[in-house]
Parts: sequence; C-alpha cells; structure tokens
Amino acid sequence: MATLTSTPQTDGFYMPAEWAPHAQTWMIWPERPDNWRLNGKPAQAAFTTVAQAIARFEAVTVGASAAALESARAQLNQSDNHRDNFTHIRVVEITTDDAWARDTGPTFVINHGGQVRGVDWTFNAWGGLDGGLYAPWANDDQVAARILQIERCERYRTEGFILEGGSIHVDGEGTVITTEECLLNKNRNPQMSREAIEDKLRAYLGIRKIIWLPNGLFNDETNGHIDNFCCFIRPGEVLLAWTDDPQDPNFERCQAALQVLENVHDGWRDGPRDENDANDRKLIIHKMPIPGPLYASAAECAGVQTVAGTQPRDPGVRLAGSYINFLIVNGGIIAAKFDDPKDAEAEAILKRVFPQHEVVMVPGREILLGGGNIHCITQQQPAASLFKTAGTDQI
Amino acid sequence: MATLTSTPQTDGFYMPAEWAPHAQTWMIWPERPDNWRLNGKPAQAAFTTVAQAIARFEAVTVGASAAALESARAQLNQSDNHRDNFTHIRVVEITTDDAWARDTGPTFVINHGGQVRGVDWTFNAWGGLDGGLYAPWANDDQVAARILQIERCERYRTEGFILEGGSIHVDGEGTVITTEECLLNKNRNPQMSREAIEDKLRAYLGIRKIIWLPNGLFNDETNGHIDNFCCFIRPGEVLLAWTDDPQDPNFERCQAALQVLENVHDGWRDGPRDENDANDRKLIIHKMPIPGPLYASAAECAGVQTVAGTQPRDPGVRLAGSYINFLIVNGGIIAAKFDDPKDAEAEAILKRVFPQHEVVMVPGREILLGGGNIHCITQQQPAASLFKTAGTDQI
Repeated sequence: MATLTSTPQTDGFYMPAEWAPHAQTWMIWPERPDNWRLNGKPAQAAFTTVAQAIARFEAVTVGASAAALESARAQLNQSDNHRDNFTHIRVVEITTDDAWARDTGPTFVINHGGQVRGVDWTFNAWGGLDGGLYAPWANDDQVAARILQIERCERYRTEGFILEGGSIHVDGEGTVITTEECLLNKNRNPQMSREAIEDKLRAYLGIRKIIWLPNGLFNDETNGHIDNFCCFIRPGEVLLAWTDDPQDPNFERCQAALQVLENVHDGWRDGPRDENDANDRKLIIHKMPIPGPLYASAAECAGVQTVAGTQPRDPGVRLAGSYINFLIVNGGIIAAKFDDPKDAEAEAILKRVFPQHEVVMVPGREILLGGGNIHCITQQQPAASLFKTAGTDQI
Repeated sequence: MATLTSTPQTDGFYMPAEWAPHAQTWMIWPERPDNWRLNGKPAQAAFTTVAQAIARFEAVTVGASAAALESARAQLNQSDNHRDNFTHIRVVEITTDDAWARDTGPTFVINHGGQVRGVDWTFNAWGGLDGGLYAPWANDDQVAARILQIERCERYRTEGFILEGGSIHVDGEGTVITTEECLLNKNRNPQMSREAIEDKLRAYLGIRKIIWLPNGLFNDETNGHIDNFCCFIRPGEVLLAWTDDPQDPNFERCQAALQVLENVHDGWRDGPRDENDANDRKLIIHKMPIPGPLYASAAECAGVQTVAGTQPRDPGVRLAGSYINFLIVNGGIIAAKFDDPKDAEAEAILKRVFPQHEVVMVPGREILLGGGNIHCITQQQPAASLFKTAGTDQI
C-alpha cells in the first residue's frame, strides 16, 4: 500500500496482457448527471449488465459514492432472470468524478514472483483545461490510490506524467501499442518529447518496444485512445477497427494505422521507430468493422444535464462507436453491440479470433452515449500467484 | 458479501474470543467537530498512536471520509521516530457519523471450518431520539455493511434488533457478559422482553449462557457498555473495574457486579438465570482500579463545537474513564493510560493477567473526552483458516 519511489521497470514489474489470469475486474458506478442522461439511470442498467456479464467469469468490484452505494449494490446484485448465474458483485465506497475505471483506476503490474502492484498515473480528465471533458477531476485522480489501498497493493505514482489506461494496450511480452494523437497531444504532457514519453512507458509498463499509430478513432473525445481502435488479441496479433468506405472520416485513420502495422522489418530490433513488436515478429492484422455511423438522438442529448465546464452532447456529432472496446476476462470476451447491422459480423470475428473464449455481446449504446465503452469502464486486476503470496505471508 | 436470512447459530457460527487470532483490526478516523475538540486534531493524533501500536502486532484498516482520507493516510503512516516498526496502515473510504468501530462495525463470527462472516446489528446512536448521542446516524448504521463488503464477508443483519458491539464480551466458549443497564434500556429494544433479547444473543453470537451485570460504569454515556467495566481475559476469568471507596458513585455498581459474578452454582447449567459461565466453571475475578475521578477541563470542553442534537460536553460531568477499555491483539494488549497515579498499577495488573502478551499503554485521554476508549474505537476481525479458505476456493 505504500507509495514506491522506484519504477516497475527497475523493480522487475511489467503490465501483463489482458488475457492473463485476472483476480477480478474493477468498475465505477455512473452517477454524473451532466454526462449520463436521466441522472444515470439508463447507464446504471447498462453497467449492471456489463458487471453481471463479467461476474459470470470472475469477481467484480464496483466503486460508488456514499450516496449511491446502497442503490448500486441492490441494482448490481439483482438477478432479473432469477438464475443467479453470476457471483455477488462487491460494492465499495469510492468518491469519483466519473465512471471510467480504465482511465482513473490503476494499471496493475506483476513480476515473475507473482506479486501485484499498481501504477497510479496522473489524471487530467483527458486534457485538463485544454479540451478536457470536465473539471475538477481531483477525485478521479485519487481513484487508483483508493483501489490500491483496498487491495493492499503497493503503488507507483507518476507525479507529473499524465496518462490514461485506455491509451495503451500491451501484449504482455514487451510491446505496447498507442497513438500519437493522444500521447503526443499538447493537452497531456506538452513539456515532454516523444523520446521522454517513451522512456516513461518503458519505466512504468516494463515494455521494450512501442508501436505508435498516428490516430485513434474519429471523434473519440479521449483524443484517440487506442482501446477504441486497435488491440492485441495475443502476442503478434492485433485487431484493428476498419472501414473500406473512403467517405468515412475513419478511412484515412485506418489506412495510416495499417501502414504502420504492416511496416515491419524482420531482422532489426532496436531502431527508434521500429514497428516490429518486441519479439520481432511480423504482426498478424485482423480487421473489425466500425458500427454505424451512430449518432445520439436529440432526446438522448436532452436527457443530459448542462453544466458549465462539462463537454456538452450534440445530436449532430458522430459517436465514436467501436467493437474494439471490449474486455477480455477469465474465459470470456465482454463486447458491445449496438443494435446495428454489423453486430453479427463483429460477434463472428470475435469468436473467430478468440476461439478459447466465450463471447458475450451486451448492449453498449448507453455507455457509448457517455463517451466510451466496455473497455473504458473496466479495469482488470491480474491474479497474484497463490504460491508466492502464501510464501510471502510465511516469511 | 450477500446478506443471509438465517442466523449464525443456525449456520454453526459464533463470535470468537478477542484473544483468538486476528486477521486485522478496524478503526474509523475521528472527524466529527461536535464530538472531537479542535476539529478532531488531538483525537486524530491519539487514534494514530493507537493504530500504530496495534500495527506492530497485526494489520490495521482505518475508514475515513473522502474529504479526510488523504490526511488520515498521511498521519497514520507517518513515523515520528523513523523506526518504521509498524506495518503500513490501510485507509479506505467509509462515510460515517462518528468513529466508534466497536459499536458501528460488524461483530465477526466464525465457524469451525474457518469461515468468517459478520453480524450487522441495527444501530441507533446509543439510544436514538431517547438519549442517543447524535442524530442522524444513518451512515453509522451502514458501516458494518461497508466493512463486510470490502472483506467479501457474508452478512447477518439484525433488522429491528438494536445492539452495539461494546455492550457484549464473549469468552469464545459459549458465554456472553453484558449489562441490564444497556441491553434492557428502553431506548434500545423496548418492545422486547429479557428472554427475547437473550434469544437474539444466542442466535447472533452463537452463545449458550448470558451473564447479566446490573450496570456498567457510572456516567458512561453508552448506558453502561460492558466493555468499559468488565471483560473476559480468558475462559472462566474476568477483569472487573473496581473501587473500594464508598463515596465513589461506582462503589455500588462494583459491589452489585461482584455479587453476580461470585454467585456461581456448580452443578447446574440450564437455569434461566444461571450465572455460571457456559462451561459451568466458577469465575475467577480480577479487580482493576478505576482512574481519577477524571473530568474534562473547561478548555477541553470549549474546543468542541456545539451542534443541536449532539450530546454537549460539560466540565462538571465526571468522565467514564476505565482501564478495562483495552484491546487484545495478536500478542499484545493495547491499553489506555491517563497520566493518572493508578496508571502503573493498571499496567502491572494487565501484565500479570496477560503474561503471554506484550502490554502497550498509550495515552487515552483524548479518546475518553470523545466518550470512550481503545476498545470502543476498534473492531477485531478474526483470522480465517488458510487451509479451509483455499479449500473453499477449489470447490
């Protein structure tokens, strides 16, 4: 629980892949009426569906405010179908500014001895006063520490270095994939060079190679988080949001990303712009269609309370809907569907690329209306080695 | 974490003795300015000393409000002497009305299979609107549930039955000791007979015998909690607050308690007013002097903010100071001292009756000014059986 002044890299810790075994998944209850329409009620139902879907595969803990806690506990543990096929969802009190556990929760790191620690990135609400989505964000910046205290995990704090968990994906074998649009944005770490940012990624994620895509998805208000656009499905294989429609504003973004991902050069490893993954494999690239185009209705936008300083909602603005924004859990894939013609193809692709997992599609529109999706609202906590934990207790 | 509709008794659970192995001790950060003088600052220092003393022997978790959490974490983990001889104290967010973990926290129960659950007594701030100490108390009534959620412990809720953990002491072998002054008080469960209350104690503590002392300590604003007056030190042995001074208002209380405790009848076990302990031993009674008489100074009382509905502080009212109000931890006794001439005798008695424990005396005056002492502000969580826990996980 103590805050360490070293880094994961120097201590032999690294971020495991999302498909590595989880102890549990963390979520945060959506309550903010200036982001979630109708005082969050529809979003709470959507988050409940996601939490219960995850809880079929692994434990879930949800943070909620003191005021909402009892209501959250009741909703999250109510079984509509009386099948009771999910484990009890734990609810703990955590005061937050909003519900994005991916971005405000810790990035958990492990070592080969089975220990689990957490990286507490400095958070500025996706851009601070320069394009950020709300202010203040002081509670959100303390979420990671709250979670690490509850779990009795030691904490690395990146004082002064801004990052959100949704802007990175790792393969667990030394590679991270991210976007220039987000990490090099002047509203994150404007004082730092690309090389200095790469050093931070190496230090806190324990990775060796960085794959930079130019952009994320069009109109993603996070400034192009990778987790809405491209992800690893196993070491050496990625899944990329894709459109063949030259009129879609994502067309050039997809082409540029593919160009980077295909531009691998076997036989050289240490160049500064090497696009190989860390173990020098050619990447296998799978394409995933983009739903829609999707837009919020005027009625949906009208359900959001207007508050100065918070990003307003506009029915004329295309939503950054994506099938990439799913969570890998122990034995399952929890992915969003949008009542869209491409839902079936997305599900089929997920089943094909994750043949060992059970693919569960849950309604994602209410989460998308709030600005993200299933990966954005979840944060996996890797499982500690039981053997090593017991051994540590005995020392 | 789920709420059970059965009782510990029917499920084979019981409250273990305080000297049984602990997983940790829970505390709550003192913040309430109408109870703790000078906005709680001196009490926070006193609680920190207690928490750090306990943390030399076992883990400690402290609940604090969102607003106070970072300050609490810093204070609790600051080592004045740089010896760092206590383990890191975990701080978690729990919104409360005050800082009495003994009375608002769960009473943990265990079974012979090594499982741990919690009893969540209904709480009414020591008397509700009829002599209770503050209103509202809704947050305090949810503290036990908060703690049990964090610990993933299943919960028994005594809907409609009022009790505070400080009003009971058990020997872990089937006996509870309590006071008529508190449990039969019309401001707790006026609709229930003594026999009905005894049934509740049997059901939720898993005990068989109840020892009723008439009263607790004079002027105890909890209406005579047993934990400020008399406790088990091991099965068959009790420690009783004692004065030989007939002018002391405690004199008759002590005599009456002694009369009950000495009035054991070997050879009969099942009578409704049997004062033997559950295993039919004669009790061995040790006496402990009462400090003082102690009074709050006018300056101390002036530091407390006056709020309608909260018990005011008066320098003319004798404080219910007691050396009985200590906590047994893994290998230690954490007891209060009062800069009083009887401190040394109290310490000597504790060392004599707990020869296997290290006795640590810490300043208790600031806690006493708030209305209790070390036992009142702590709640031990028994250790689960590691073997059985692992086995359960595998089932």
